Amino acid sequence: MHGEFDLIRRYFDTISGDHPSVQLGIGDDCALLSPSSHFELAISVDTLVEGVHFLPDIHPENLAWRLIASSVSDLAAMGASPKWLTLACTLNDPSKEWLAAFSKGLTEACHNYSLILIGGDTTSGQQQVFTAQVHGEVPVGKALKRSGAQAGDAIVVSGTLGDSRAGLALLTAEREGESEYLQERYYRPTARLALGEALRELANAAVDISDGLLADLGHILTASGVGADVHVEALPLSAAIKELAPESAERWALSGGEDFELCFTLPQDRVFELQQISERLALPLTVVGEITQQQGIALLKSGEPMALPASLGFNHFGNEHE
Amino acid sequence: MHGEFDLIRRYFDTISGDHPSVQLGIGDDCALLSPSSHFELAISVDTLVEGVHFLPDIHPENLAWRLIASSVSDLAAMGASPKWLTLACTLNDPSKEWLAAFSKGLTEACHNYSLILIGGDTTSGQQQVFTAQVHGEVPVGKALKRSGAQAGDAIVVSGTLGDSRAGLALLTAEREGESEYLQERYYRPTARLALGEALRELANAAVDISDGLLADLGHILTASGVGADVHVEALPLSAAIKELAPESAERWALSGGEDFELCFTLPQDRVFELQQISERLALPLTVVGEITQQQGIALLKSGEPMALPASLGFNHFGNEHE
Repeated sequence: MHGEFDLIRRYFDTISGDHPSVQLGIGDDCALLSPSSHFELAISVDTLVEGVHFLPDIHPENLAWRLIASSVSDLAAMGASPKWLTLACTLNDPSKEWLAAFSKGLTEACHNYSLILIGGDTTSGQQQVFTAQVHGEVPVGKALKRSGAQAGDAIVVSGTLGDSRAGLALLTAEREGESEYLQERYYRPTARLALGEALRELANAAVDISDGLLADLGHILTASGVGADVHVEALPLSAAIKELAPESAERWALSGGEDFELCFTLPQDRVFELQQISERLALPLTVVGEITQQQGIALLKSGEPMALPASLGFNHFGNEHE
Repeated sequence: MHGEFDLIRRYFDTISGDHPSVQLGIGDDCALLSPSSHFELAISVDTLVEGVHFLPDIHPENLAWRLIASSVSDLAAMGASPKWLTLACTLNDPSKEWLAAFSKGLTEACHNYSLILIGGDTTSGQQQVFTAQVHGEVPVGKALKRSGAQAGDAIVVSGTLGDSRAGLALLTAEREGESEYLQERYYRPTARLALGEALRELANAAVDISDGLLADLGHILTASGVGADVHVEALPLSAAIKELAPESAERWALSGGEDFELCFTLPQDRVFELQQISERLALPLTVVGEITQQQGIALLKSGEPMALPASLGFNHFGNEHE
């Protein structure tokens, strides 16, 4: 670890505190951790690049929240519990105010997700680049993988879909309107950790929705060697998205990214168990389709096949082909 | 982990192979690892930024070697053994040839250091940025920390110092001459893993020399609350540096960075044990000073105090004030 990290360390001391799992935190050549017995270590790395993954004028508090939430979401998708964070920041001569605000957002997000900052590196560059690595733990053999979906499984999604994409449309003035709810869903998505943990004994396969439902469900299908029927009427849509963009809501729910909800599959005869989880977590869980033996995704509307949207591509500023 | 990682995965398949410690490698939301019992996990993160830490025209094979060696060196300084690597690459529209050469260097370096690539993220940006995180293991309680130096300890360095800085002087035409040896010491430094492992039962404190001997020894002194006498005649210099730059060799040995040798302290009555380690590893180990109770570093030449070089600062292109 480099001395430059002192810069950011000064601001982050409150989130790199003592914890029995951390033998040595920031300030030596390495951090030293004590992993728990009978657990596997789940690791995910995510990079956000200025102008590619976030708008240059994003508020640094919101940037920190998005960075942490999107990283932790990968742990949720594995059924893992967050433990430790490292953060590599390439900064372009940041002001003290910027650093203080970024630090505030980071501190809040780390507290929220029970993450301890154990190290990182801070460097200078022309373009801001942030790489967060999150480390979580999951009991041996209990991780939720993409590869376990079985023909006949129900396909379920949490929350409502497309809201982050709609929030982005407001922020970029692609749509006119106001909705604090939708903007918050873009800036401060919620990683579904409690749901991931609840699904360890229930789901056959899971993924988080970072690139859009169709793309991420596609990852499950590819890894499991199966296909899917998806019922577009069943897609859970928020009141806010239906009010803002009724003509786009369905498409955004299918291919808008960065909702960071979970998409998972489970046997039909266990779908009834979702009700209790949904109530306990106060989180909608909606069956949106079934896993099939036939490869690929079939979209169905009123039981009839429907063409896939012209492009399901998604980039982080939402400029899919329309 | 994002789909963009497929780009680099295609090239790196050979280093992300099966290993009993890896339950799940690249291709799911997280990698899943099985840490060993009775070991602590040592983690270090290093970022290299184009134009800051490496010249834009560096050969991609050399870039990969430097990235891995400099990261693994932090494990060596803790006495840890390398296990797993994650790699976040921000690339600027790389050619297939660039990717293939970078992959070749990365594959070789990972084989050399017994590292398994378990995941990462690949993104696009205007400036190349590479963040490597290495994960190693060290028996519980045996890690070499910066904080254990005791007044009276001998201060020892491995190898020869300043060679990487001299190699850089050749590459930037700051000095005229030719020395494949010095250039290799810049491009492909050797992380001193076997030495770090041998020191677990011997050294009181250790650090790797990434920012220059004085700066890195300073980290030990600060962490341990002690000072040091350093004998400049004792500094180990290669024949190549003495031939290339006799007037600069001493200064480069004190403040040139990126040699990635180890600097460590041990009780005087155990210095005799170094002989056998040095022979077994075919690596010079040189006593260059002693730990003192008085804070700060005193440079001594022929037993007389000597002024510290005007600036001990080091940046990665070697532009210290001269």
